[in-house]
Amino acid sequence: VIALIPLEGLPLVERGADLAALILDALGRQSLALRAGDVLVVAQKIVSKAEGRAVRLDEVTPSDEATQLAARAEKDPRLVELILGESREVLRTRPGLIVVEDRRGFVCANAGIDRSNVQQTEAGETVALLPLDPDASAASLRGELAACSGVEVGVIINDSHGRAWREGTVGVAIGAAGVPVIVDRRGDRDLTGYTLQHTVIGLADEIAAAASLLMGPAAEGVPVVLIRGLELTGRPGQARDIQRPRELDLFR
Amino acid sequence: VIALIPLEGLPLVERGADLAALILDALGRQSLALRAGDVLVVAQKIVSKAEGRAVRLDEVTPSDEATQLAARAEKDPRLVELILGESREVLRTRPGLIVVEDRRGFVCANAGIDRSNVQQTEAGETVALLPLDPDASAASLRGELAACSGVEVGVIINDSHGRAWREGTVGVAIGAAGVPVIVDRRGDRDLTGYTLQHTVIGLADEIAAAASLLMGPAAEGVPVVLIRGLELTGRPGQARDIQRPRELDLFR
Repeated sequence: VIALIPLEGLPLVERGADLAALILDALGRQSLALRAGDVLVVAQKIVSKAEGRAVRLDEVTPSDEATQLAARAEKDPRLVELILGESREVLRTRPGLIVVEDRRGFVCANAGIDRSNVQQTEAGETVALLPLDPDASAASLRGELAACSGVEVGVIINDSHGRAWREGTVGVAIGAAGVPVIVDRRGDRDLTGYTLQHTVIGLADEIAAAASLLMGPAAEGVPVVLIRGLELTGRPGQARDIQRPRELDLFR
Repeated sequence: VIALIPLEGLPLVERGADLAALILDALGRQSLALRAGDVLVVAQKIVSKAEGRAVRLDEVTPSDEATQLAARAEKDPRLVELILGESREVLRTRPGLIVVEDRRGFVCANAGIDRSNVQQTEAGETVALLPLDPDASAASLRGELAACSGVEVGVIINDSHGRAWREGTVGVAIGAAGVPVIVDRRGDRDLTGYTLQHTVIGLADEIAAAASLLMGPAAEGVPVVLIRGLELTGRPGQARDIQRPRELDLFR
């Protein structure tokens, strides 16, 4: 049995917040202690905020390129300026949507910056950009959790991505530490003794999607999910390993 | 808390098997009774087998088209003949991979027929094609479970699909009944009061991916997972609702 356990009552996360401490506090209030084999899935949004990746929209001056693209995409030019700054390449545009390869190498909508990341504060509208290096963020959080609790757990930072051919977003891993990410079952045999020739499982993405069931669209209220009971086999990897090399991409 | 509970000890499924009875027997052996709100995720493979979708490879005669495509894709021409028969259109080909729009409208590799679906039997190699209408299969199973148990649960039939830009397959819903499939959160407000403009969640796919964590690559041993504790809101849908209309597909 696998249990997906929502962490309740985390405070709103601000720049410089100690996520490891906040998570361990929340676990303690639920009378939970980390165990080896646990995986914590943490919503991108709170990692971004803790890392100070919030930008005030009224401090952004859109370039000509951003202004033109914003007209085609029917978006706020300041948001598009930020999207371009976070992207290596714009792949497709249609009203409401700009699909990019972001600076981390992920193909995603709006470089992970959408209107649900806009927050109205006293200082004006702010937008949370993705963590600069989500794998490093996950490794750092894992290290701090181990230092404070003595237990080495897996950490996945998740976000919601759209898909090329399927409606709706699903949770995916954008950062990972201490968890197998891509599990290669090529060469394993199934029950009938037949050799599976090509079974490569996106394990970290499946874990990220499972956690999203509790997080909801904007991770309201539940930005961290503890997953207990996974049987993890295989070497730990990084979320960057999930990025398909461009030369193997048949659909760009 | 959401619990993902593997159903243990299901027998190998053969043509004509009564899946509802097999599932209720397995639940009984684990001292579990269905409850309203439960979702059963059932691996495509056993649905296909119960529906008699197994085909003997030595009874397949490849067409010229299949033989030529098989050479390019480095696949068994008989398998390619079956893939073409299950597809509306071939979208991309590379060695080891044929990406199609299948007859149900799903964009997937090899029309869901890969070597892990090949079974060596006394009668020779057999391959399990996907159910003809997985939404109907899910609705039928849901109806039979309700008739036998008196409880209306959700049913999802899942399979593993590759993605355009990400390595590894993940569980997705190819059939659904009694479960919200696409949850449209456009117009909901997040904690900060900001209106989310475009948040459409692929809920059934996230449920399918979560179940895949227990099923493994070829659903060895665990072809059914009971999911308990989901808070399902929204109208039930069908997996065909997940198919992005071709005119909105930016990546074909």
